[in-house]
Amino acid sequence: MCLDEVRSKPHERLSAHLSDDLDAVNRLIRERMQSEHAPRIPEVTAHLVEAGGKRIRPLLTLAAARLCGYDGEMHRLLAATVEFIHTATLLHDDVVDESEQRRGRPTANLLWDNQSSVLVGDYLFAKAFLLMVETGSIRILEILSRAAATIAEGEVLQLSVARDLSTGEDVYSKVIRGKTAALFEAATEVGGVVAGAPEEQVAGLAGYGDALGMAFQVVDDLLDWGGTSGEMGKNTGDDFRECKITLPVIRAVARADADERAFWERTIGKGRQEDGDLEIARGLLVRHGALAETRQVALDYAARAKAALAPLPAGELRDMLSDLADFVVARIS
Amino acid sequence: MCLDEVRSKPHERLSAHLSDDLDAVNRLIRERMQSEHAPRIPEVTAHLVEAGGKRIRPLLTLAAARLCGYDGEMHRLLAATVEFIHTATLLHDDVVDESEQRRGRPTANLLWDNQSSVLVGDYLFAKAFLLMVETGSIRILEILSRAAATIAEGEVLQLSVARDLSTGEDVYSKVIRGKTAALFEAATEVGGVVAGAPEEQVAGLAGYGDALGMAFQVVDDLLDWGGTSGEMGKNTGDDFRECKITLPVIRAVARADADERAFWERTIGKGRQEDGDLEIARGLLVRHGALAETRQVALDYAARAKAALAPLPAGELRDMLSDLADFVVARIS
Repeated sequence: MCLDEVRSKPHERLSAHLSDDLDAVNRLIRERMQSEHAPRIPEVTAHLVEAGGKRIRPLLTLAAARLCGYDGEMHRLLAATVEFIHTATLLHDDVVDESEQRRGRPTANLLWDNQSSVLVGDYLFAKAFLLMVETGSIRILEILSRAAATIAEGEVLQLSVARDLSTGEDVYSKVIRGKTAALFEAATEVGGVVAGAPEEQVAGLAGYGDALGMAFQVVDDLLDWGGTSGEMGKNTGDDFRECKITLPVIRAVARADADERAFWERTIGKGRQEDGDLEIARGLLVRHGALAETRQVALDYAARAKAALAPLPAGELRDMLSDLADFVVARIS
Repeated sequence: MCLDEVRSKPHERLSAHLSDDLDAVNRLIRERMQSEHAPRIPEVTAHLVEAGGKRIRPLLTLAAARLCGYDGEMHRLLAATVEFIHTATLLHDDVVDESEQRRGRPTANLLWDNQSSVLVGDYLFAKAFLLMVETGSIRILEILSRAAATIAEGEVLQLSVARDLSTGEDVYSKVIRGKTAALFEAATEVGGVVAGAPEEQVAGLAGYGDALGMAFQVVDDLLDWGGTSGEMGKNTGDDFRECKITLPVIRAVARADADERAFWERTIGKGRQEDGDLEIARGLLVRHGALAETRQVALDYAARAKAALAPLPAGELRDMLSDLADFVVARIS
């Protein structure tokens, strides 16, 4: 695949290809976020779901179902379910992280209050389950409930290892699986299940979603350090400032000498940072090859995502999903 | 029924009668609150579920199923589900209300942090759904998902009408239905459904749970004003101090003259309270008969709960459920 194709943004090609489905999902989302009794619910929800997210997760469900030859409409309910779960976790995340900006706009917790974010998130979780129930499939309910549990578990784990420099790569994997990959995996898997696809294809879709989500999050964590070659720009360094321990730091800490270890202890373990520390930290990551290795981990996940698609029917949709995996890592190529 | 029987605490008789079931539910709760990855989850959960709550909601599910002649074990999964949903809402409520005490102990948000309470609550919601999924019943999943949505909706509604003196009784009913009655109703209804009871009995159980929950909450709101005759003790006046608008206030505001209206506007609408205001407020409630009327509303709900049990098989279990309705209002008799 040439770079021009990568840059034509496969999620936009997916949106165009699935535009009828996606329009129906957007209508469903607007319809189901209403509350008969509490108008604040659609207000808060609309602030987030209409802020121009890319709808990647619902697109994955729609694409997975169509790729398996599904010609019904149940996959739209599931796509809306997945977006509701995602929106609920964003609302709760912003409370947990005390965030003030999301998608370039003030967060709901800032515009309204933490209370509204917590409770509207709860409402959307419950509505997500009601949407799933309409499919009548216990297997689908189990997949998505398990994903919801993995998401919450990953977030609690992240909270409990905050600033802990002994955090290993196994914990990091569990955290980012919860943060991103679990819902990507469930989104593609239920698309296959609702289509009644053979188990081999369902497993392929689940493997694709998981690896794509892992690649996505590793790339995000790498870009927070400005990538392997780029300069640290204004959108970088947040993880360091927030003392978040991501893969590059884990690799660099593992190879730190006594002085370097003291540096990480002070800046991340104790959170006592001074001017210039971010640049020193980045220098250590480069010196120990941690950024180049993290890039390779992301590329490996993207390759694994593409390979997982092998059992699925060849064609335009499979190509777009494959291109999406390339696109996710194109930012660090 | 004589008062001695009321005072023998029907929920303790239910616990004794259903002790095998209840022990199994407690084991199930301890087992399913574990997290493979995040030890903070069972820590936070145990703090709450082992604090000696009365397990009223799981008891309702167990009793409803057995009353309908159920001899399986699936109702235990549902009883644990109901307790998980309840625990999750308590965790989130304490964040929303910024509470510092629950069941006589410091709240989880105080002992850990708001973040842990939000995320562990989310985890318990997800685990509740996984427990339900094991029953394989779409109808049960729908009943409990709808209850979860009603709970969140009621909480958001309460938040959006806070301090709003134009709040009417319809809004109050929706708020307390979300706060208490929706989960009571779902708890008893799924007991009947899992037992495969005839529709008339399922409807009777749902009606019982709803009315019992409404009675419970109206009593709570009345006791916060010291009941109809009692003195205002140290456990009273919280709602007034927090500017919460409950049934007694709604009735008194509806009959307020201009001076009284100004009083309510200042103390609840604007939250500007002075020493002695609580006593003045209570005087207004008494003068307008608002406390006596609220008591009657609670008694009516309790009577409705008992009447709803008519289609259920007569016997010891039905008597205990009936006595429970009397017990709930015995505190205001």
